[in-house]
Amino acid sequence: MKATAEIQVIPLGVGVSVREYVKKAHEILKTSGLQVQLHAFGTNVEGELDDILAAVKRVHETLHAEGVTRISSAVKIGTRTDKEPTLAGKLF
Amino acid sequence: MKATAEIQVIPLGVGVSVREYVKKAHEILKTSGLQVQLHAFGTNVEGELDDILAAVKRVHETLHAEGVTRISSAVKIGTRTDKEPTLAGKLF
Amino acid sequence: MKATAEIQVIPLGVGVSVREYVKKAHEILKTSGLQVQLHAFGTNVEGELDDILAAVKRVHETLHAEGVTRISSAVKIGTRTDKEPTLAGKLF
Amino acid sequence: MKATAEIQVIPLGVGVSVREYVKKAHEILKTSGLQVQLHAFGTNVEGELDDILAAVKRVHETLHAEGVTRISSAVKIGTRTDKEPTLAGKLF
Repeated sequence: MKATAEIQVIPLGVGVSVREYVKKAHEILKTSGLQVQLHAFGTNVEGELDDILAAVKRVHETLHAEGVTRISSAVKIGTRTDKEPTLAGKLF
Repeated sequence: MKATAEIQVIPLGVGVSVREYVKKAHEILKTSGLQVQLHAFGTNVEGELDDILAAVKRVHETLHAEGVTRISSAVKIGTRTDKEPTLAGKLF
Repeated sequence: MKATAEIQVIPLGVGVSVREYVKKAHEILKTSGLQVQLHAFGTNVEGELDDILAAVKRVHETLHAEGVTRISSAVKIGTRTDKEPTLAGKLF
Repeated sequence: MKATAEIQVIPLGVGVSVREYVKKAHEILKTSGLQVQLHAFGTNVEGELDDILAAVKRVHETLHAEGVTRISSAVKIGTRTDKEPTLAGKLF
């Protein structure tokens, strides 16, 4: 099933600046075979829902492995059966 | 990896009242081996992140199979390495 | 205009444990004339939209005044014209 | 207090296609004196928190006035005291 999603990652316990880890999360999404669009509140992605969910898991795993103690992520997912969901189709 | 999560499902194209489908989504989560807590803006769950993500996918699949054309879901995920994340531990 | 809302507050730069500040945020909402329901991923509230938005602002202001350098909040708002929106009406 | 925010609006009861109303919401934000950036999952804004919250209210009011029976919005707000929060500062 194809889906679009927005993935926002908030690392806790690494101080006020979280850029290093947010950037790492974005890089993981970019190398996950998904189409990605970075914006100020997350990364929008397009692809198979399975791949999106696996990428979300990989982000949590990788950031923990790199020393982040606590992670709060927010994921919005859009699916539809009348036409293929795309990021481009949500713009105007 | 253990996680806590909040899952909110918004079915589109089924009219103003979405209760029937939100209830169905909650039932799917309840039968997914996760601990669940219903509240007014979603269902909070606790369990293995793999099981949580699989349940999110099942919700989208099942609701589409039952005739919902478009679904927007919002998932918040919390993981931490210093102690086991639990729903109870987030209350005070 | 009456509304229901969910307010989640994530303080950044105060370490891994954010309980003290999340509790403070909940107390601010409780004393804002809104009906409140605490859960593991935020506080659900019911009341006038103006009061809800003012309370969200007060949470940011108060936590900053108490020393939190950075705050990320997530607010879901529900309004409807066919009947009065209530938290109780969203449960089943 | 300056803030950055993401505002996503989901109209319910208007059918599967919600583009007309999402576009209207974006136009309201654009004419609210805020800096705005449209993306596939919402509009990112930058400005005074008061203006942002007033704009969120205006979106709900205007869409209801144009016939939308039910609205679910999701607003993420970022504030910080160590430097001025900007949308540009959140990109890399």
